[in-house]
Amino acid sequence: MTSPAAAPVPVLVFLDPAFHDGRLADATKPQLMATDQGATRGDGVFESLLAVGGSPRKLQAHLNRLAGSARLLELDIPAEEAWRRAITTAVSEYRRGHVPGAATSDDDELVVKLLVTRGVEGAATPTCWVQASAPGPAGRRQRETGVDVILLDRGYDSEVGERAPWLLMGAKTLSYAVNMAALRYAHAQGADDVIFTSADGRVLEGPTSTVLLAHLETSDDGSGGVRTVRRLITPQLDSGILPGTSQGALFAAAKAAGWELGYGPLEPRDLYDADAVWLISSIRLLAPVNHIDGKEIGTPELRRQLTAELNALYATIE
Amino acid sequence: MTSPAAAPVPVLVFLDPAFHDGRLADATKPQLMATDQGATRGDGVFESLLAVGGSPRKLQAHLNRLAGSARLLELDIPAEEAWRRAITTAVSEYRRGHVPGAATSDDDELVVKLLVTRGVEGAATPTCWVQASAPGPAGRRQRETGVDVILLDRGYDSEVGERAPWLLMGAKTLSYAVNMAALRYAHAQGADDVIFTSADGRVLEGPTSTVLLAHLETSDDGSGGVRTVRRLITPQLDSGILPGTSQGALFAAAKAAGWELGYGPLEPRDLYDADAVWLISSIRLLAPVNHIDGKEIGTPELRRQLTAELNALYATIE
Repeated sequence: MTSPAAAPVPVLVFLDPAFHDGRLADATKPQLMATDQGATRGDGVFESLLAVGGSPRKLQAHLNRLAGSARLLELDIPAEEAWRRAITTAVSEYRRGHVPGAATSDDDELVVKLLVTRGVEGAATPTCWVQASAPGPAGRRQRETGVDVILLDRGYDSEVGERAPWLLMGAKTLSYAVNMAALRYAHAQGADDVIFTSADGRVLEGPTSTVLLAHLETSDDGSGGVRTVRRLITPQLDSGILPGTSQGALFAAAKAAGWELGYGPLEPRDLYDADAVWLISSIRLLAPVNHIDGKEIGTPELRRQLTAELNALYATIE
Repeated sequence: MTSPAAAPVPVLVFLDPAFHDGRLADATKPQLMATDQGATRGDGVFESLLAVGGSPRKLQAHLNRLAGSARLLELDIPAEEAWRRAITTAVSEYRRGHVPGAATSDDDELVVKLLVTRGVEGAATPTCWVQASAPGPAGRRQRETGVDVILLDRGYDSEVGERAPWLLMGAKTLSYAVNMAALRYAHAQGADDVIFTSADGRVLEGPTSTVLLAHLETSDDGSGGVRTVRRLITPQLDSGILPGTSQGALFAAAKAAGWELGYGPLEPRDLYDADAVWLISSIRLLAPVNHIDGKEIGTPELRRQLTAELNALYATIE
């Protein structure tokens, strides 16, 4: 048994009015109060994004979603510019310390998390920080190999988000225990990931990703040839899912490349009938789905082709 | 404007194999790593209990429930004896520092929280600690004045707990963002607290409490007099609610005192028809419910009488 190389120490930058570019903090030492409501109640919001060659991808979309989540939780967070400066500090500090040749390299990947908690019990201000760290190996591998998925009931019907705002359906909160439990449940069944369904049978999202599917339709082009319509589909937002920043960006790029776009309602049979299905997220990017509940989706060749095509589109983003 | 007296500093005791009675830590300094999965994902479990005059109440019931929650989240937590020793350390240290005359006083109240997180990202062991702190003033006040409550849909149907274990319905997890949002929503409506209902219309529980109701039925005693049957009712557990340690202990005491006991299914009209309704929890104890969605429950006199009777029973516990 060889022990794996220790992951590089993350870089932490706290948002702090006394430090214009954020306050660097030692990630090898405790930095959070034990009474912080992030730790005691999962009461806060976050974002995870990828920086490639030192450039955060889809930064504005992530800042917008962070602000939206904070509004839903009534958290008064620092202005966007303060986040941008702290992110720059975290990324450049991480690359200076951990990425050999960072000054010239432009394809290294690092994970940037933006975190907000309701702060220490009794305090009036949230705790806000940025963390830069190395991506885990699984995500990069799953982009290549794809994932096997099981469908799990998330318990809510698809209309609950509209009628019950206190359920925080559109917010990316720190209360992720159920998402983590669903992933453990999938791993125990030999699967890699989960697609949640609603109590009324709709396709929702993954615990940490958005569901995408592709349909190819061939038709007569009117002059004796064959025309292929490529359609990219995702569940509708009002079913109580998180708006995917990667899905949003990919849809815009796909539309420009001639794809047609569609928005659910989707049912499991739509997944089984698709030519390809992906889980898309900011760090792992496009993970092609090989099997859902043991049934193969499309064919290996079709999945490979379509994944390559969408990866090429995704690479043009920002 | 007078500034309120600062709350006494909590006492923190971490469970640590190197410290037999737990490791005392300074609560005025950061003690948690920023990469702790409690803080980044609400991934952990907890208990809150009351210590009166230095004696933790219903300690075994809380330790049992903590162990049950940890099992549901697949967290391997320290043995009960380690928790008991850390609790003793925290309570005695808090009283030594903060409770004048603690050596002879036996009616001071303090809140003891037991916390478990999945630990630092990549580490194999959970982070476990005990916190002793002063109760907030609201709980003690609401025991006397009662609370106004609104009903809010929790989105789940009452059978989801049985069919979807990954939703962790029976675990007291750190992912409390929705519970906190429901309370904020209630406060914004001018209410004090919430009773959750299921998507199929069943009465469930409060965000941090169990629902109890009382029915008095008078009947002929067979010899010309009147017999009053006192019945204490709570929603059935298999509807996906947390087993209440206070409800459990009070039920046992009430049974011994001649009350009849009942277990739901309950619907909102059962609440409106009750002679009294309470939210019961370990810190606030019995909070009589004055109004639900604006409708008065029972009468002030009946609420007062029955609350006094149940408080007397509750005082006999442990």
